[in-house]
Amino acid sequence: MLVLGVDPGLTRCGLGVVRGTPGRAEFVDAGVIRTPSGLDTAKRLLRIEAGLEEWVTRFRPDAVAVEQVFAQHNLWTVIGTAQAAGVALLVAARHGLPVATHTPSEVKAAITGSGRADKAQVGTMVCRILHLAEAPKPADAADAVALAICHSWRGPAQNRLAQLAERAERAEFSGRAA
Amino acid sequence: MLVLGVDPGLTRCGLGVVRGTPGRAEFVDAGVIRTPSGLDTAKRLLRIEAGLEEWVTRFRPDAVAVEQVFAQHNLWTVIGTAQAAGVALLVAARHGLPVATHTPSEVKAAITGSGRADKAQVGTMVCRILHLAEAPKPADAADAVALAICHSWRGPAQNRLAQLAERAERAEFSGRAA
Repeated sequence: MLVLGVDPGLTRCGLGVVRGTPGRAEFVDAGVIRTPSGLDTAKRLLRIEAGLEEWVTRFRPDAVAVEQVFAQHNLWTVIGTAQAAGVALLVAARHGLPVATHTPSEVKAAITGSGRADKAQVGTMVCRILHLAEAPKPADAADAVALAICHSWRGPAQNRLAQLAERAERAEFSGRAA
Repeated sequence: MLVLGVDPGLTRCGLGVVRGTPGRAEFVDAGVIRTPSGLDTAKRLLRIEAGLEEWVTRFRPDAVAVEQVFAQHNLWTVIGTAQAAGVALLVAARHGLPVATHTPSEVKAAITGSGRADKAQVGTMVCRILHLAEAPKPADAADAVALAICHSWRGPAQNRLAQLAERAERAEFSGRAA
């Protein structure tokens, strides 16, 4: 199963392609789409779309995995990240590709066995799994690769479970916020 | 100047088209793109994109105005709204159309003279300005029409000022949050 992982962001949108089978994964490619912060958000999103279209067309993945957007310390960052993630979802849907979101702790748990592992530990395990001498750079590309490994290892049943859990979490969140 | 106003949202994305000259505005059309809440976010964004493409192609506006996404009580709503707004920005940029965002208080101030006007007051003024017997429905379509009027009345110079003010506000917000 060929998976394109996307670590969304306006300034740096990480991309990672991995071919995975249960318990194993092979590195295919990793990179990043950068857009200048001085550019209009609309034009930045257009560049991110073009980059994603290029990767989807080049690698023809079986699925796309996007990192779940969460509350961060800066609301403007959340909005920009959500918009970049939205473009990734849009491009996947346009190509008829199944798309899933995973939380950072799901990714850490899949790679290291612990949802609380630190970045260095995830990096070490990604290198070990993919037989790489060093982690892909920049960090956004490495995160996208980890996300792709995570997704390729989670079967459709597990994804359904994750979606149910996410819905329950959303319902709880709405309940708390109301 | 023909303006397409977009009040972004995943469930209901309001659209309004207005032809405006300083102090005057003519109603062209209003409507809403609805997507079912049970559908994947990726497919919902794809439908919103298709709807926006249809309106842009049909009306060929000179500019697109999108309501600025702000903090709301529910983080998931903010993320969905930001993603729908992102798709509107993307479609505008793809067609080479200038796109601007306006805050709800900018819209209220442009329409009623007060940034704190209530919904009823904005509705009354929109009807008066456009010579309509009643406000476009649903509320999201009416909001998009008000946004389009606001944008058509703000000259390019005012838009530049607004952008500078917004950047300053963002910088302040980042400062507070850091």
